[in-house]
Amino acid sequence: MDVAVQLLVERLHTRYAHALDADRLEDWPGFFTEDGRYRIATAENEERGLPLAVLYAESRAMLRDRVQSLRHANIYEPQRYRHIISAVLLEKISDTQVRSTANFLVIRIMQDGAALLFASGRYLDRIVLGPEPLYEERVVICDSRRFDTLLAIPL
Amino acid sequence: MDVAVQLLVERLHTRYAHALDADRLEDWPGFFTEDGRYRIATAENEERGLPLAVLYAESRAMLRDRVQSLRHANIYEPQRYRHIISAVLLEKISDTQVRSTANFLVIRIMQDGAALLFASGRYLDRIVLGPEPLYEERVVICDSRRFDTLLAIPL
Amino acid sequence: MDVAVQLLVERLHTRYAHALDADRLEDWPGFFTEDGRYRIATAENEERGLPLAVLYAESRAMLRDRVQSLRHANIYEPQRYRHIISAVLLEKISDTQVRSTANFLVIRIMQDGAALLFASGRYLDRIVLGPEPLYEERVVICDSRRFDTLLAIPL
Repeated sequence: MDVAVQLLVERLHTRYAHALDADRLEDWPGFFTEDGRYRIATAENEERGLPLAVLYAESRAMLRDRVQSLRHANIYEPQRYRHIISAVLLEKISDTQVRSTANFLVIRIMQDGAALLFASGRYLDRIVLGPEPLYEERVVICDSRRFDTLLAIPL
Repeated sequence: MDVAVQLLVERLHTRYAHALDADRLEDWPGFFTEDGRYRIATAENEERGLPLAVLYAESRAMLRDRVQSLRHANIYEPQRYRHIISAVLLEKISDTQVRSTANFLVIRIMQDGAALLFASGRYLDRIVLGPEPLYEERVVICDSRRFDTLLAIPL
Repeated sequence: MDVAVQLLVERLHTRYAHALDADRLEDWPGFFTEDGRYRIATAENEERGLPLAVLYAESRAMLRDRVQSLRHANIYEPQRYRHIISAVLLEKISDTQVRSTANFLVIRIMQDGAALLFASGRYLDRIVLGPEPLYEERVVICDSRRFDTLLAIPL
């Protein structure tokens, strides 16, 4: 894989993580193509071929709607999240597209200061290259099936 | 350190992590040279100069044996692991060999969905370069001495 | 951002992390310029504009003093730390300076082997480039406000 492409894609993952950690949810749809797809699933459902998704969108417009709902539903205590991304593995699809697999952890920091491991899993992405690459598809596979009972926030 | 070498080595660590996380244990020996050495130890034993290893192999054949034992002994509940690798520091040994030091975390996800910090520590590696680099030696130093009482799975 | 610069800066973060994890505190001031500034704060205080810092220094000399104090005050049980750094985002300031934002986790391993999430947060850095880049300023923003009641060790 080309060195420049590797760093461009890692930079996309990085900017995405910082946007979510800084609660800049309104920037989130901008990391996707206009008809970009997004899905959070659990490893268990994924392996069983169950189509259940914790969170689902198939366009930027749907992602924007999701952000609006989250802003309105946000009656819970404010929380902080911290994303750790690792092990970004790229595979070329075409001259302008790559597939990316990466591991992630998300830490949640509660109002009282307690920090806990909120989620771990894999990002499975299809990315369109360019000066600023974009996600055509981002599938978030959470390791734990406990996840699906929690509030569906973007990961 | 050469940019291309840095990325090639990080890619080796990444592919290794994904193989273990996806339970592709049979691929594990293939990341080592034919006479590659592998050892898991605890920081405490390492500092005391004690030769005790939690898991030990000095060839691909021994690694394959280890995989077979694990497959047969696997009477415990299925578990998921997630590797996070960070801070990969390279040092040149020769034109075809580098030394790599890296930090790692491994999360274990239990059957009931609980996720816990399973292990943290350092990978100390001697790597042969090439289109697909290989480990000549991978020493896994676990931070916690609690580790040595657990089931010896590859890290 | 230039590929070589990205890797040089990541290497700085990496060497810094390994120095702290290996308890080489005496090497710590050497990662800063002579008048380098260092500060640990909590996200809460930072957002409120409170100038309170958990740990503060504005020169290499002050950092050295801090190390000496820590060595003398170290009456607690020995502990191990493990740094995980991720999502390094660079922004050019000038031909010789960059701004870096990165996420971190620090794991603490207690004497009895228990491992816990000690701190998470962001590194906000101003870095002078060169064959070995140096921190002109490193601000460590901890996510949890619980942090400020703990012993102030370098992060």
